[in-house]
Amino acid sequence: MTLKKSWVASANDPKHPFPLNNLPYGVFSTGDDEPRCGVAIGDMILDLAAAEAEGLVALADYPLFDVPYWNDLMEEGPAVWAALRDRLTALLAAGAKQRDAVEPLLVPMAEATLHMPLVVSEYTDFYAGRNHAFNVGTMFRGPENALPPNWLHIPIGYNGRASSVVVSGTPVRRPWGQLKSPDHALPAFLPCRRFDIELEMGAIVGTPSDGPITVQEADDHIFGYVLLNDWSARDIQAWEYQPLGPFQAKATATSISPWIVTKAALEPFRTDTPAREFELLDHLKDCGPMLYDIELEVTMAPEGKPATTIARTNYKEMYYSAAQQLAHHTTSGCPMNVGDLLGSGTISGATKPERGSLLELSWGGKEPLTLDTGETRTFIEDGDTLTLTGAARGEGYTIGFGDCVGKVLPALENPYQR
Amino acid sequence: MTLKKSWVASANDPKHPFPLNNLPYGVFSTGDDEPRCGVAIGDMILDLAAAEAEGLVALADYPLFDVPYWNDLMEEGPAVWAALRDRLTALLAAGAKQRDAVEPLLVPMAEATLHMPLVVSEYTDFYAGRNHAFNVGTMFRGPENALPPNWLHIPIGYNGRASSVVVSGTPVRRPWGQLKSPDHALPAFLPCRRFDIELEMGAIVGTPSDGPITVQEADDHIFGYVLLNDWSARDIQAWEYQPLGPFQAKATATSISPWIVTKAALEPFRTDTPAREFELLDHLKDCGPMLYDIELEVTMAPEGKPATTIARTNYKEMYYSAAQQLAHHTTSGCPMNVGDLLGSGTISGATKPERGSLLELSWGGKEPLTLDTGETRTFIEDGDTLTLTGAARGEGYTIGFGDCVGKVLPALENPYQR
Repeated sequence: MTLKKSWVASANDPKHPFPLNNLPYGVFSTGDDEPRCGVAIGDMILDLAAAEAEGLVALADYPLFDVPYWNDLMEEGPAVWAALRDRLTALLAAGAKQRDAVEPLLVPMAEATLHMPLVVSEYTDFYAGRNHAFNVGTMFRGPENALPPNWLHIPIGYNGRASSVVVSGTPVRRPWGQLKSPDHALPAFLPCRRFDIELEMGAIVGTPSDGPITVQEADDHIFGYVLLNDWSARDIQAWEYQPLGPFQAKATATSISPWIVTKAALEPFRTDTPAREFELLDHLKDCGPMLYDIELEVTMAPEGKPATTIARTNYKEMYYSAAQQLAHHTTSGCPMNVGDLLGSGTISGATKPERGSLLELSWGGKEPLTLDTGETRTFIEDGDTLTLTGAARGEGYTIGFGDCVGKVLPALENPYQR
Repeated sequence: MTLKKSWVASANDPKHPFPLNNLPYGVFSTGDDEPRCGVAIGDMILDLAAAEAEGLVALADYPLFDVPYWNDLMEEGPAVWAALRDRLTALLAAGAKQRDAVEPLLVPMAEATLHMPLVVSEYTDFYAGRNHAFNVGTMFRGPENALPPNWLHIPIGYNGRASSVVVSGTPVRRPWGQLKSPDHALPAFLPCRRFDIELEMGAIVGTPSDGPITVQEADDHIFGYVLLNDWSARDIQAWEYQPLGPFQAKATATSISPWIVTKAALEPFRTDTPAREFELLDHLKDCGPMLYDIELEVTMAPEGKPATTIARTNYKEMYYSAAQQLAHHTTSGCPMNVGDLLGSGTISGATKPERGSLLELSWGGKEPLTLDTGETRTFIEDGDTLTLTGAARGEGYTIGFGDCVGKVLPALENPYQR
C-alpha cells in the first residue's frame, strides 16, 4: 500500500499522521459551535455535519453526523462504515470533482477543540501483553511464578469504569485513596504516591452481540482503535486488588486519543500473533494475522520543561488480539454494545526502554529514570505531562492517532474538607 | 409507623407488599402498549404516564413518566422525588378527593408485563457481607485467613457488566466458559457445572457526582433499592479470577426485582451497622443507622415442582451500607451517574440456613441440600427456578419488593456450531 494523494496538500507529507489512507473520525467544535463529527485530513478537519447537510455525504434518511459522538454511525453497521470511507476517499482524493464544494467545509485543526469521539458504553481493560504481565509478576512473585496459571489460556481482564474515560488533553487530578504503607500496620487515607501510566491501545466495539461470538466475528465487530492511557494508582491498587481486582486504583481517569482510526485504515499493517506456548482452545484460536504493526511511544515532560521519550514499543508485542479479547468477553453470553471500549492491557517490549509503565521502567520505584532535563522519576510528579503517540508506517505515508496527552494536577487538599 | 390507609382496598392488607406506605416504582405495559412508568398500589398499578397526561401529577414542564425507565425522574433531584411521593400519597390515600379521576388510571397488576425499571448506567458489585466473606474465605484459605487484609477497612468491590442486568422473570441461560477441573492439567471450554445464585440488595444512584463525596452525601444520592441476584458461575470464576477479579463468571446475567423501593419507604426500618473491629477511617465512618431491617428469602423450585425455601436472612447482616460503598466508590474521583447500580454483596447470616449462596449452603458442593420434594442439590440444575423475596415489616403493614425470579435454561448445545 502506498500513499493515496489528496488535494489537501498537507495530507501528502509522508510523515503526516492524517493522509487520505487514514481518515480517522473525531468530534470537534470551533468557537461556540456545538461539537459534531469530523474527519481528519492533513492539517484540516472536514465538517461532516456540514457535508451531510450539503448532501455531499448521504448514507441514511436521517442525519448521522450532527451529534457529538460516532455511535450513530457505528449503529448503521459495517456496510455503511465502508460506504462512508469510500465516499470520503472520493471527495478528498487528488482530482476530486467535488473539491470546490468540499473545500469550504474544511476547518483548520489548529482552530478546533477536540472532544470525546464516542459515548463509551462500558469499558473493559485486559492484561494481555506478555512482557508487561511477566515484568509485573516477577516484581511481585518472582520470575518462576510471574504469569498466573490462566494467563496463557485466556486474555484475562476486568471491567473498568466507562464514566472515567476522558479525551486527550483533559487534566488528570492525582487521586486520594485508602492505602497501606508496607511499614504501617493499618491503612490510611492519603493522596496517591505511586501514580502511573499504562500504555495501551483501545478497541471500539461497533456491532452489538447477545451471545458467544467467534474470533472472526469479533474482528468484524470492531469499528476502530484509539491510543489509551490507563492511569493507575499503584499504592491504592496494591491494597485493594485482592481478591476482586483493580477498582478505585483505575477509576480516576482513562485517557484516549481524540481520533478513532478505523480498522480499514490499519488493514495493511496486520501482523501475526506470537507463537503459542499452549495451543489456544478452539473458541480463541487465531484466524489470520490479528495484531497490527503500530509503533508506540511515551514521553514525559515536567512542568514547563521539554519532553523526554521514556518508552518505545509496538502493538505487535501483544499476546492476544482485540478480537480474541472480545470473543472471550462474550463466552458467558455477556451482551456487548456499540461503544464498548476494550483496553489491550499495557504494551511492553522485551527490553527495558520498551516498557509501557513507570512501574516497570523504574522496577517498582527501585531504579529511577533520568530525564533529558537531568531530573529523575520513579512515578509521576505533579505537573508532569504524559503523552502517548502511535504510528503505523506504510510506503510513503504514516497512519497516526493524534497524541493522547494528560497533565497531572496536584491532589485536592482534602476532599472531605470543602 | 403504622399502615397508611388507601382507597385501593387490597393495599390495606397488612401482609400485602404494596401498601400506601410503599409506593414502589416500576415500568409496565399491557397488551401492545408501550412500556411506561407506574407505581404499585395493592394489586394495581397506577399508570403514571396517563396520570401526568391528565394533569394529576405535574412535576415538570415536560413529561417525565411516558418513558420506559425512571432515570428522567431521578435526574430531577431529591426535592422532586419527595414531591412525587407526597402527591402519590395524597392521590391514593383513603378519602382522596381525586379518587374518581385516578381510579380509571389503575391497571390490574395481573394483566401487566413488568420491564426493567431503569436504564442501568454502570453496575458495581461489592463483597460487603461479613458472614459470606468469612464462609467463602474459610473454604478457600481456612478460617484464620478467611477475610482478606483489606476487608475490615474498605468495602471491596469490582465493576460488573451493566449490559447483563435483567428484570425478574427473564430466563437465564447456563453459560459456557473456560474452566479447569482440579484433576486436569489444562483448561477446557465447557458448560458451567457450578452455577449459583447470590442473594443481594441493589442500591440505585439517583444523583450524579464528580469527585469524592461523604457517606452522608452518598446516602442522600441513593434513590432506592431492589433485590438483586448475582448469578455466578463458580467453576469459571475459580479459573479466571486471579489476579484481576471476577469477569465472565458474573457476566451472564444479574436479575433485579421489578419495583424500585424508595429510600423514603424504607426510612422506618433503618438499623445500625455492626460494631467495628477496626475503627473505620473518617471518610467511611458511619453517620447514624445506615442499614435496613429487611427479611430476605430464597426459594428453589425444580422444573414443574413446588418451591423449597433454601435460605432466610436479613439485609441488616451487612458490614458496610450502600452509602459507605458509594462513598468509597468516589474516593478516586470516579464520576458516578444517575442509574448506577451497586450490588451489596451476598448477604448471609451466622447460621447455615441463613446463607445467601449455594456455594455456602452446600459448602462448596460437599454438603448437598435436600429439597422438600426429596431431591438434592449442590448447585443449580437445568429447569430450576430461583426466587428472591424481601419484606420490611412495620406495624400492620409490609414493604415488599416484588419477587426476583429466574429460571435456569440448559446451556446452548455448542455456541460455536450455529
